[in-house]
Amino acid sequence: MNMFEKRDGERTLADDPAAMAADGSIVFIGRIHSPWSSRETCPKNMRAARETGEGATVEIDEPYRPGLEGLANASHVIVLTWLHHSPRNLIVQKPRHATDAKGVFALRSPARPNPVGLHVARLLSLDIETGTLKLDAIDALDGTPVIDLKPYIPTVDLITDAVFASGKDAK
Amino acid sequence: MNMFEKRDGERTLADDPAAMAADGSIVFIGRIHSPWSSRETCPKNMRAARETGEGATVEIDEPYRPGLEGLANASHVIVLTWLHHSPRNLIVQKPRHATDAKGVFALRSPARPNPVGLHVARLLSLDIETGTLKLDAIDALDGTPVIDLKPYIPTVDLITDAVFASGKDAK
Repeated sequence: MNMFEKRDGERTLADDPAAMAADGSIVFIGRIHSPWSSRETCPKNMRAARETGEGATVEIDEPYRPGLEGLANASHVIVLTWLHHSPRNLIVQKPRHATDAKGVFALRSPARPNPVGLHVARLLSLDIETGTLKLDAIDALDGTPVIDLKPYIPTVDLITDAVFASGKDAK
Repeated sequence: MNMFEKRDGERTLADDPAAMAADGSIVFIGRIHSPWSSRETCPKNMRAARETGEGATVEIDEPYRPGLEGLANASHVIVLTWLHHSPRNLIVQKPRHATDAKGVFALRSPARPNPVGLHVARLLSLDIETGTLKLDAIDALDGTPVIDLKPYIPTVDLITDAVFASGKDAK
């Protein structure tokens, strides 16, 4: 069975980004270690992930570990992942429990033209020598490649007056 | 003159990610239009960008425009860019006004192994037919490629108790 069957109202791109000439190249810098080994059990967003009470780990590959120096100054880290199991050609999607189809850019679905996942997690501990970050939670499958880490900086990332009208249907 | 001269305490990767075999491929889906045409005038972060009072525009390419349906539900949008002018091999960096060198993952510098920029901006207006998003501000050069848009969702992205010890030196 296809993990991403097409639902009513969904639309695909004429040219699949997965088959197009690359405009840029990604290198994997590490991996997620999480309790989630199937899409069915994996939390659908970071709120649901936190509610499980299950932690997670990021392991950064050896060459990139010096890049972790100073990250412990941040209480929270933005993890960017490469969601390589997802189709890239679903431009309009219908989330399972939603009534209407929506554009991919209005969703946090893993299926997107460039399958970059964005996860904000609390940094519980950092071991630079082994490249290990312990996080409070993650909404990503075990083994998911990591492509970047950034500090969450309140003055630029914390938008106190932000509103999203349909958070329920966002993934 | 090299835009990114090496400063004291900086370290480079033995293997430059720009020259490595790709683990994943990026396609550009649009462009930033901003008032900033040189690195000297470009705001160093989103707070500084907002303080200029200058708006910005994202133009999404035609095939991807159906993906914008529903994004107007979000007051703020996360723009992911590809910072293609930046070197990718600077793993420890010394920001211009910082006293100490820091790991790239503790910084929001555009020079990183995978040059993905993350910008949270207020969405002022959305025209799906022309693929045009008007934003309150952006800290990116005119012409910067866009690789993804996501809604900013308060329940997962707004971390009220986040702390960053040295925000001043973050870029």
